[in-house]
Amino acid sequence: MRAVDIIAKKRDGQALNKQEIYWFIREYTCGNVADYQASALAMAIYFQGMTDRETAHLTAAMRDSGETVDLSVFGGKTADKHSTGGVGDKTTLIVAPIVATLGGKVAKMSGRGLGHTGGTVDKLEAIPGYKTELTREQFINQVNDIGIAVIGQSGNLAPADKKLYALRDVTATVNSIPLIASSIMSKKLAAGTDTIVLDVKVGSGAFMKTEAEAHELARKMVDIGYNCGKKVSALITNMDVPLGFNIGNALEVKEAVEVLSGNGAADLTEICIELAANMLSLCNDWEISFSRERVKEVIKNGFALEKFREWISAQGGDISVLDNTDEFCPALYSAEFISGADGYISFMDAEKLGLASMILGAGRAKKEDKIDNSAGIVLFRKTGDYVKKGEKIATMYSSVVCDFSSAEKMISEAITVSMESPQAQKLILKTVTR
Amino acid sequence: MRAVDIIAKKRDGQALNKQEIYWFIREYTCGNVADYQASALAMAIYFQGMTDRETAHLTAAMRDSGETVDLSVFGGKTADKHSTGGVGDKTTLIVAPIVATLGGKVAKMSGRGLGHTGGTVDKLEAIPGYKTELTREQFINQVNDIGIAVIGQSGNLAPADKKLYALRDVTATVNSIPLIASSIMSKKLAAGTDTIVLDVKVGSGAFMKTEAEAHELARKMVDIGYNCGKKVSALITNMDVPLGFNIGNALEVKEAVEVLSGNGAADLTEICIELAANMLSLCNDWEISFSRERVKEVIKNGFALEKFREWISAQGGDISVLDNTDEFCPALYSAEFISGADGYISFMDAEKLGLASMILGAGRAKKEDKIDNSAGIVLFRKTGDYVKKGEKIATMYSSVVCDFSSAEKMISEAITVSMESPQAQKLILKTVTR
Repeated sequence: MRAVDIIAKKRDGQALNKQEIYWFIREYTCGNVADYQASALAMAIYFQGMTDRETAHLTAAMRDSGETVDLSVFGGKTADKHSTGGVGDKTTLIVAPIVATLGGKVAKMSGRGLGHTGGTVDKLEAIPGYKTELTREQFINQVNDIGIAVIGQSGNLAPADKKLYALRDVTATVNSIPLIASSIMSKKLAAGTDTIVLDVKVGSGAFMKTEAEAHELARKMVDIGYNCGKKVSALITNMDVPLGFNIGNALEVKEAVEVLSGNGAADLTEICIELAANMLSLCNDWEISFSRERVKEVIKNGFALEKFREWISAQGGDISVLDNTDEFCPALYSAEFISGADGYISFMDAEKLGLASMILGAGRAKKEDKIDNSAGIVLFRKTGDYVKKGEKIATMYSSVVCDFSSAEKMISEAITVSMESPQAQKLILKTVTR
Repeated sequence: MRAVDIIAKKRDGQALNKQEIYWFIREYTCGNVADYQASALAMAIYFQGMTDRETAHLTAAMRDSGETVDLSVFGGKTADKHSTGGVGDKTTLIVAPIVATLGGKVAKMSGRGLGHTGGTVDKLEAIPGYKTELTREQFINQVNDIGIAVIGQSGNLAPADKKLYALRDVTATVNSIPLIASSIMSKKLAAGTDTIVLDVKVGSGAFMKTEAEAHELARKMVDIGYNCGKKVSALITNMDVPLGFNIGNALEVKEAVEVLSGNGAADLTEICIELAANMLSLCNDWEISFSRERVKEVIKNGFALEKFREWISAQGGDISVLDNTDEFCPALYSAEFISGADGYISFMDAEKLGLASMILGAGRAKKEDKIDNSAGIVLFRKTGDYVKKGEKIATMYSSVVCDFSSAEKMISEAITVSMESPQAQKLILKTVTR
């Protein structure tokens, strides 16, 4: 086989077969197929698409390019979730203990953040003492004991995807539904859980700009998982607004505690209930309405918050900070972001708010950057709210940046104030299952 | 500027501006833009095309990526020709002395062959003593004295094109009209002649499969040249048949002598007259019909053949081989290719005949390969001819290969014999000028 022939076949709109896809991915992973051939193929896929069968082969080829985790020791019911990227998305911190409380086994590997999105592992590391590395035995034992363990991605999972994703990022080939679907699912399948709930974001700040595109991506991923013997559901959710009020690592841990205490932001609470309910429906074969009631119950009776404390404690974290969140990781500097006009907040660019938070020290521009756990933004007003000139919209926090002008400029670009009240938007648009 | 943004812009169907194109080509030439980004851009161009303005900028950017030759010393009238690739295409050997006889200045740099097409420089080197390297002074003096000099490509002409073409070859992005047009024209413009006649091949063996595509390519190249102050014409010619009867280096030199002596193959003679006439019309501002008559005249009266001898002699070649072509470079081995059936030759795959000739030693599979000047194929029958079973269709020659079975197999794949007489095809389909 020759890479150039495979590229030409896809360029001409023909479907690649299993042998061709496996050959290309294998040879690319070991360096025999060059980056410039992989990028040309990715661009051809961008234009010509891939059939469901091709996408499934690509996913499997990338899954099989490295190690796969065996979670069969738990005898089923292991649960995972994945979001296609969001700003202020601390849902894993909230959903994981809820699901564990109700019998799901959360054996989860999470990533670090880069650019405007924070990673779950970074958020957990804001808690003093929390260990994101466990041995395989510790990991298994903890999940067996308390139903939950969340660690950093270790091992060599789907290295082909890692290599291809880095390439797509610099060749304008990220935004292709079959490539996104296979990238996400190859990692999720390699991570070995029995059930997966996906949160597919749609909106101006997301890769999927329309509900139709998001639905197509969700459907592809659900089908891929199903065909590999997994139970998969996907929520399609609005990403035009950051979830909750807090952006930044310690700030998001605090907000997770608020939601688990029953007094969190309405939008964040809503999406966490729906994600947890879907995970439990897959794990426990429960009706979705029954799942939802159980989820609300364990928030209300405090069992989920107690599970959160149990989890953090099991991984070495200092749970006293969860009890007294006001004292948790205070920032050295802060400044208010003030409205420059009267009017309705008609749009908040979640990505730009994420970038502002990164500028303050909460995220990494480059892999090597160190994170300031105290840094971030707390919003006081969100899309749809009326603000008066001079009124506080947000507070910026940082312990490493004392000149807030860059972050302030970014926030002012992120927020549009206009005279007309924007149309109310649904948060959860659709659920895709099989 | 960032390469990824330029790729995304083209991917989304927007026209790139001059700054973006120059920046990309400059940074690519010096290695700051990676091959994987250039191949992704090439694939995006494959799908989205380029406007005439973009193609012109790309051409100019590649021309300006290296040296350009200054031929203004001749005060106008310098002539060049280019073919988009053909098998058995020895037209330069014939056309150049005709044009020089009639007052055009042929100051030409030619390439070597790779794969199934032979290069003009390789053919000239079959003549003992012929020097393909001249100093700039020798080159200029010879053109001034006798109106013609043909040397190998020297210097660093359009290095961006060289780099990009090699990349396109292995990423399935060769076959894009704006990329082909800019590749050819960047080299021709860097070579510095005032007039250029292009021979755009169309047919199953050519990059351009339809006359409409070939016309679009021709029009783009003529426009690019015109906008750079050059006079450019293009012939669109049928490439479904090899030109003339001989394929191989010494064999093609012999055939050139035959055409210049007035007794060459009809198709080859026709195309040479038309190419030379177009070159002279551009150089001398002659009406095309007048040019044609002058061309026929200098073939008939022997002046063109005499110019050929003068040229070869000036560059050190042994002209005795031109007088006695039967003795010129005989091959050690030969074998006949015999028809296996009665019928009409309905199709000859020129590319496969070129490959057969390469297998016999006439061409290079890799750059480093040495050429056997005596090797090649002489055809006795061509498309449209009726052959009987057992009748000779061709003779194969080689001094390095004595087992002819591989070449024979390739020729048998190249030639289709069927009961129906094929429709006669025009050789010269159209002329594109401005």
